[in-house]
Amino acid sequence: MNGADALMQALADGGITHCFTNPGTTEIHLVAALAREPRIRPVLGLFEGVCSGAADGFGRMTGRPAATLLHLGPGLANALANLHNARRAGTPVVNLIGDHPAAHRPNDPPLASDIATLAAPVSGWVGEAASAAALPEQGLAALRAALGRPGQVASLVVPADCAWSEAAPIPVDGPEPVFEPPAEADLAEAVRMLQAGVPTGLLLGGPALLEPGLRAAARIAKKSGAVILSNTFAARFVRGAGLPLVRRLPYFPERARKRLAEFAQLIVINAAVPTSFFAYPHCSLDVLAAGCRVHTLAGPRQDGARVLAALAEALGAGQEMPETVRAQRPELPAGAALTTESIGAVIGALLPEEAIVSDESGTSGEFAFRGTMGAPPHDWLCLTGGAIGQGVPVATGAALACPGRKVLCLQGDGGAMYTLQALWTQARERLDVITVIFANRKYQILQVELMRLGFNAPAAGILDTMDLGRPDLDWVKLAEGQGVPATAAGTVDGFRAALARALAEPGPHVIVAQL
Amino acid sequence: MNGADALMQALADGGITHCFTNPGTTEIHLVAALAREPRIRPVLGLFEGVCSGAADGFGRMTGRPAATLLHLGPGLANALANLHNARRAGTPVVNLIGDHPAAHRPNDPPLASDIATLAAPVSGWVGEAASAAALPEQGLAALRAALGRPGQVASLVVPADCAWSEAAPIPVDGPEPVFEPPAEADLAEAVRMLQAGVPTGLLLGGPALLEPGLRAAARIAKKSGAVILSNTFAARFVRGAGLPLVRRLPYFPERARKRLAEFAQLIVINAAVPTSFFAYPHCSLDVLAAGCRVHTLAGPRQDGARVLAALAEALGAGQEMPETVRAQRPELPAGAALTTESIGAVIGALLPEEAIVSDESGTSGEFAFRGTMGAPPHDWLCLTGGAIGQGVPVATGAALACPGRKVLCLQGDGGAMYTLQALWTQARERLDVITVIFANRKYQILQVELMRLGFNAPAAGILDTMDLGRPDLDWVKLAEGQGVPATAAGTVDGFRAALARALAEPGPHVIVAQL
Repeated sequence: MNGADALMQALADGGITHCFTNPGTTEIHLVAALAREPRIRPVLGLFEGVCSGAADGFGRMTGRPAATLLHLGPGLANALANLHNARRAGTPVVNLIGDHPAAHRPNDPPLASDIATLAAPVSGWVGEAASAAALPEQGLAALRAALGRPGQVASLVVPADCAWSEAAPIPVDGPEPVFEPPAEADLAEAVRMLQAGVPTGLLLGGPALLEPGLRAAARIAKKSGAVILSNTFAARFVRGAGLPLVRRLPYFPERARKRLAEFAQLIVINAAVPTSFFAYPHCSLDVLAAGCRVHTLAGPRQDGARVLAALAEALGAGQEMPETVRAQRPELPAGAALTTESIGAVIGALLPEEAIVSDESGTSGEFAFRGTMGAPPHDWLCLTGGAIGQGVPVATGAALACPGRKVLCLQGDGGAMYTLQALWTQARERLDVITVIFANRKYQILQVELMRLGFNAPAAGILDTMDLGRPDLDWVKLAEGQGVPATAAGTVDGFRAALARALAEPGPHVIVAQL
Repeated sequence: MNGADALMQALADGGITHCFTNPGTTEIHLVAALAREPRIRPVLGLFEGVCSGAADGFGRMTGRPAATLLHLGPGLANALANLHNARRAGTPVVNLIGDHPAAHRPNDPPLASDIATLAAPVSGWVGEAASAAALPEQGLAALRAALGRPGQVASLVVPADCAWSEAAPIPVDGPEPVFEPPAEADLAEAVRMLQAGVPTGLLLGGPALLEPGLRAAARIAKKSGAVILSNTFAARFVRGAGLPLVRRLPYFPERARKRLAEFAQLIVINAAVPTSFFAYPHCSLDVLAAGCRVHTLAGPRQDGARVLAALAEALGAGQEMPETVRAQRPELPAGAALTTESIGAVIGALLPEEAIVSDESGTSGEFAFRGTMGAPPHDWLCLTGGAIGQGVPVATGAALACPGRKVLCLQGDGGAMYTLQALWTQARERLDVITVIFANRKYQILQVELMRLGFNAPAAGILDTMDLGRPDLDWVKLAEGQGVPATAAGTVDGFRAALARALAEPGPHVIVAQL
């Protein structure tokens, strides 16, 4: 058995089931080991940003890491933007990155680069295998690091000789997420705040937004009058009819400030303290009310759901069913013009139960989020780190994580171009993903920001850099060119028919919403 | 005048003429400044790997840096793979990377990351602007660093407040490349070697491969009997009829070893000492003959052409025209099957004078290199760092650098998928680029390497990760979807007709060679 085999066996023993890859010569022995390990499914991406985004989507939906297998520094470099998003999402990911043997590095061959330094900014853990014998233990160390709380990106550099040289299998415990316990004093403080008769927000993020945390938070809210809040971009919202309502903070800082103005206190569970997404001249970065008291009850290393359950207990919150979102679908708008609003209503009307929505819709998706509020329970995955090109890859990984569930990807055309190669993987793996491309032919968010920055009559030269036209992209061809059937819709009726048809058929589809 | 305006004015004064960009909110003031600076042309790429590859192509053809303008860490991350290639090519590039103001970083907003660390592995110079007032001087420092020898990647982080705050213009000297002078002792040593009557190779790389260096090397070769060599992948070969012949080392180490076996001495000018591209088990990394004496006459920081001229002088080489490559075109193969060999012959028969070839053809382009040996003088740009996805972006930048010259991009389908977004920029800018996509529907080099590694009957699971089929990519649709006319050719006659037509028409074309 060589090091590659011992590594893959250890990772499979530790629970890895999927490996998203675009390998090269330095990874051939790892690929061969994958082919010999039936418990890990290799999935090919035609660009590494597809692999890392898919691993993020997989990890968000399962809580378990997928592996990526990448070709030296350049392969990792191409994966970094979506690893940045995964880091912000707190997603567990195990990166395996091939490298030259240490003996070859003094020769400085063309593909050599400083892989560990490239990996550091996105990784909570970086390691380099020193020998074939050490490789499986290093793989398990990466796996354990990925499962730390918050889930994190763990990157292991694998020199080719460590993969091809002799090694032995190692015994594997089943690594499980490890949480730090909540501090009693923090809990007591939260109870005092909730009993103080002051408007209080319960800001949930990360795992606290999954159903157990949500339900505990709802009991607290019912007992105390606190309001459940979240940041704009969450790794995963569990939402829909029958689930507690979460008030999501608006994106723009002045609107977030308005929403937060009423709260004199904020109790934070697994979330980042709200701040402005960008800075602007002559504009405060603060979005909290002046003097708002912030109490971080559960940091990222703690199990927010358990902390919330303990808080509900300490508060004496009842066990009765708290108020939840009413089942409600928008009217199917007929004959109306196709707008982001009417698209949102159609999606709200048709979204199936247990759907997973991968949302990188930028300025176009707000109405879809609203329109699905009372739809059957579903998951909603956001662009966590602001690095565009996440939507289609995350949808790909989510579909592999949850066979049998429909995945709907809401994708702006600007971001879609970044990682369009993910459509090919969806075709090859026959995944049930429907990608709605909001084709407004511009980076609209930038044009909005331009106005906000005071460029009210911007020069043509400025607008040119934010414009996807000249020539217009033909998304039907770009999808069909990768084996994904596609339809362009320019009317509400056309869009509704296309979405209904795509929902009824297996396999991937693209619907181009012509705005 | 704000910092952004002062920066762009300084860069324009310093000779920057093109800026390849995909900006975001943190870069809006820089974009506005670009729009106010008529001497710098902004060029939009729909993915940052397009921008960095285009800057590389531009710099290789002009010797001057283009700028890139990138959106924080993720924008830089997407540019890194082609910056790795630019680093290996010794290409001058100035990266401008937007960032949050320093005051916002303690809030750790979603897009924040460690940009300087990400930039370090590809950059010879990394800086961060501390104030608007300092910004233009920092920009010039980056420009000077880029123009160092070898040309290098210089990365300047620009916090948004440095762009939008008040600043003043600065006086600009015209920065020029600075070379270290050759050492007299090194020159004398080279003369002794060439007079020793021992088989000697003159290994040229980087700027030594441009015409002045080549001609000096040819005089030395004629006088001494030395043989002019190059590594497999050069940033730019100047070649064709009437130019000195350079013997390019083969890619695979056993073949390179065979080619180098005759040489007891190697004089190196601006080149890396030859080594194996990859390491293999039970295979030496050395490609030089045992005991071969290596003398680095000109390192990367020296002007190889001047050193070669000095060496020719010291050697007493004559001024008469040395032997050069004979004008010769392959027969146009009619009726033959379309193979990499027949494609190479057609390209050799039709390549126009002053063409620029951007070669990322992998296993498919060897015959094209041979077939064009006696074609009219042209430039040939190689994949310098092994990071695939270079060919189409480099062709894009080369076309912008050299209007009026035809650019031919020879591109494997695997690498083409990495940065296919460059086709859109070619359409928007109406560039004279013909992209030949070698559609063999696999990562063929990997299947070759697999054999070499002893996997003679590889498992289907291994081949799956190296296979671009299921579904086949339709490159005609992928090109047309971005506004580039495309033709698929399955016969030699069809390929020849398509190439002749594309050469006769302005603007970009894609020809899909169906292998």
